[in-house]
Formats: sequence, structure tokens, C-alpha cells
Amino acid sequence: MDNQRLLQQIQFITEIDKIKSIFRQSLIIDQTRNENDAEHSWHLGVMAILLAEYANEGQLDLLRVIKMILIHDLVEIDAGDTFLYDETGALDKEDREQKAAERIFGLLPEDLSAELFTLWREFEEKETAEAKFATSLDRLHPLLLNFYTEGHAWKKHGLTRDKVLAKNKHIADGSKELWEFAQGLINEAVEKGYLKA
Amino acid sequence: MDNQRLLQQIQFITEIDKIKSIFRQSLIIDQTRNENDAEHSWHLGVMAILLAEYANEGQLDLLRVIKMILIHDLVEIDAGDTFLYDETGALDKEDREQKAAERIFGLLPEDLSAELFTLWREFEEKETAEAKFATSLDRLHPLLLNFYTEGHAWKKHGLTRDKVLAKNKHIADGSKELWEFAQGLINEAVEKGYLKA
Repeated sequence: MDNQRLLQQIQFITEIDKIKSIFRQSLIIDQTRNENDAEHSWHLGVMAILLAEYANEGQLDLLRVIKMILIHDLVEIDAGDTFLYDETGALDKEDREQKAAERIFGLLPEDLSAELFTLWREFEEKETAEAKFATSLDRLHPLLLNFYTEGHAWKKHGLTRDKVLAKNKHIADGSKELWEFAQGLINEAVEKGYLKA
Repeated sequence: MDNQRLLQQIQFITEIDKIKSIFRQSLIIDQTRNENDAEHSWHLGVMAILLAEYANEGQLDLLRVIKMILIHDLVEIDAGDTFLYDETGALDKEDREQKAAERIFGLLPEDLSAELFTLWREFEEKETAEAKFATSLDRLHPLLLNFYTEGHAWKKHGLTRDKVLAKNKHIADGSKELWEFAQGLINEAVEKGYLKA
């Protein structure tokens, strides 16, 4: 066994434990606390297994989708979570996350470092069928948590239907059917008073 | 779109949010709190991506390994977490988890329900190469968390090296190299006073 290689892999595995303390704007559904990035990534992984049939492009590489999903938020260990509707945070998000990717994926042996960096870039660029579907789940998931927590983050940030529709319409690039569902959810949220019209 | 089908899938996705409140015996590495099942499952998924090269059987179906990993703890929503060293809890664990699997996977449309049930049984039976590797990661992960939290759960339950070696030796069925590493970790834990000799 190339022990040095395994030690590097284990060092990376312990480093990424920190993602369990990177908290997001959404509450978990029982409303006791905010969700963290590890939980979010796990939930997206299961959603990919269950909802792959709705991807616009039928022949997805599901393993690639799930790999992207499981590692897409690791950069937030250094860069922090930037709320989707945070216009100021969005200005330097790309820079912060690029630096984070270099440090964090750089902990791995070269071949794995390159693999994870490539997967992360692919997710961010949203060009392949796999990245489009993975990012559409990444948008759908907080909509679900918001709906089932009576609009917690929407209310906290005073968001309106138009803003939520505009920021999430890319769901359609990955799945027209899931975007149709999401629009219904957003409209129902307005009716129930979870989201401003 | 068969809307009823999608609604059932979404209902399942919201039900399994509860796994974020099923806490395990291990602390997360910063020692601020116990780890939950969603975080544990996410961490195992990333470990599978990074450590697949150490599986005893070279040609693993990695997608199947990760699917098993992401859903293996869902039964604990009803059955609760049973600590590996809890001899009393072990007595009726199988019964409790079987009932839980029937209810939880039963929320899904029939084809997906059958798929997840089969994956869960495969993980539990530890007979295929994929299940052997997935379960070896499921054992290795708490060893890592215990080591890096100065033996928190080992000390709390007064465990000894012999007991930890005996309960984890099945790691070798999935990966001889990871078992070799794990034994080194356990011995180092004894030297550092994290685990009783």
C-alpha cells in the first residue's frame, strides 16, 4: 500500500468534516435549526436517485451527477455559504470559491485533486446535462425546505414571488417537469402567505 | 407528467428530512455536538468516491455503492440509531429496522420502493462486493471520528481495544488495505490514551 497516498486521502476526509458546521439560510423541516451543507448535499444525492427520470436529457450519467452533488459545497469550508439572493455576496463569490477550491482539493493526491476540481467546475458552469440536472436539484431543494417551513428564509429576507421565480428559473434547464412543479409550489406558497406576491 | 407519482416522490423527500435529527454516538471533529445520520451518510458517500481504489474487488459498481450508502440509515427514522456495541439494542434491531423499511420505502411509487428496499437489504446482508465495501466504510467512518475526537464515544462507553477490533474486523471483507490502516489507528488510539488496552 502507498501509505502516503492513503494518509493524504484521510487528511482530506477529516478536513471536510468542517462542512457540517457551514450553515445555510433554510431551516430543516421540523424548524428546530438551520440546515448545514453536509445535510443539504446528502439530501440532494437522494433526490438525484429518485428524480433522475425527470431530467430533460434522458441518458444521464447518474454517478457523475451524484459525485458533483456530494462535493459541490466543499468550497464553502473556506468561502462560506452565499445566500442565493445576496447581491453583495455574489460580487466576489467566484473569487472566494476559486481560492477555496485550490486549497481544499489541493490537499488530495494529484489525480483525485484534478478529478474533484473538474467536477466542481462542471457543476458551476452548468453546461453539461449532468451539471444542469445537478444544479436544478440544488435550486429545488431550498424551495422545498422553505415551503415546508412556512417560508422561513423567504420571510426573513422579505422576498417576493417575482424574485424567487427569477432566481430559480434555471431549474428548467435541468428539468422542465421539476420547474413546472416548482412554479406550482411557489404559487401555493403565495396563496398560503409564506411568500409575498 | 404523472403528477401523482411526483407528489409521492416529493412526500418521501420531505419525510426523510427527519434523518437530520437522528443523532449518533460520534461527535463531529470540532467536538461541538454529536453527528447525525444525514451528515454521516454524506461523509460515507465522499469516502466511497475517494477510497474505491482500496476495495478488495477491483471492478466495483460505484454508483450502487453510493446509492446504498445514501439510503442505508433511512430506517433509523423509525428504528433509531443502535450503537454498534449495544448488545441489548442489537437483539431486536433487525425487527425494528425491517418494519421501518416497510413503512418508509413504502411511501414511494412501487418501482422506486422496490429499488430502495433491495439496496437496503443488500447493504445489510453484506454479501456482494458493493455491500462489503459500503459497510466497511460505514465501520471505518466512526473509527476516524472517534480517533479525531480523542476517543469520545470509546471513553463514554468504556470500550477496550479488543472489543473495537472484534466489532470492526469486517472492514477487511471490503478492503484489506483499509482494515490494515484501521488497525494502525486503533493501536495509535491506545498509545494516546483515547482507548483502553
